[in-house]
Amino acid sequence: FVEKDFHPLRVPVSRRPALDDLLRCGICYDYYNIAMIIPQCSHNFCSLCIRQSLSSKTHCPACFVAASESDLRNNRLLDDLVRSFGSARQQLLQLVQDARQTPSPLG
Amino acid sequence: FVEKDFHPLRVPVSRRPALDDLLRCGICYDYYNIAMIIPQCSHNFCSLCIRQSLSSKTHCPACFVAASESDLRNNRLLDDLVRSFGSARQQLLQLVQDARQTPSPLG
Ligand SMILES: [Zn+2]
Ligand SMILES: [Zn+2]
Ligand SMILES: [Zn+2]
Ligand SMILES: [Zn+2]
Repeated sequence: FVEKDFHPLRVPVSRRPALDDLLRCGICYDYYNIAMIIPQCSHNFCSLCIRQSLSSKTHCPACFVAASESDLRNNRLLDDLVRSFGSARQQLLQLVQDARQTPSPLG
Repeated sequence: FVEKDFHPLRVPVSRRPALDDLLRCGICYDYYNIAMIIPQCSHNFCSLCIRQSLSSKTHCPACFVAASESDLRNNRLLDDLVRSFGSARQQLLQLVQDARQTPSPLG
């Protein structure tokens, strides 16, 4: 057998969720959109998601520490990271695509 | 000429600084080590770095907003991101190494 099923280029795609998951809001599961931190517990959510949640509840949805809208602070670095991660991922996918095209029998 | 100087696998390494830079402290330039956020301006530093700075100065070293040690809050997601980014980078480097070994004349 030739090592037909060994595709090293698939590795980062399948192991990607770690970084990817960390940049997602626990309420909407999408990437942070205007990330806000609850300073007392260090949890983060999209601005809209957490404001909606705190309009009816008085605690952090992740750890239930008491929290209100006035506690929220921007966590701008997360917004930068979401953008930067998005373009890094684009480059990686392009890379995988290029690498797959090189040895293609259709080439 | 064969396209000897075209190494698509070098792309993410050379373009890596974006994500990489975002996860570095502006005081020590190393990756965040126990990241702390100054909630009033959203700037982040290592715990030790910013505590040392605020022991002699009364402002954020990045934007000069008034700040004191008691303002600091953990930004734990940044610590998780540093760890996760570190292992993603390891995998990517391994990947590049594997890909280079495959067509090697020494193989
Ligand atoms: Zn959200
Ligand atoms: Zn919380
Ligand atoms: Zn530092
Ligand atoms: Zn600042």
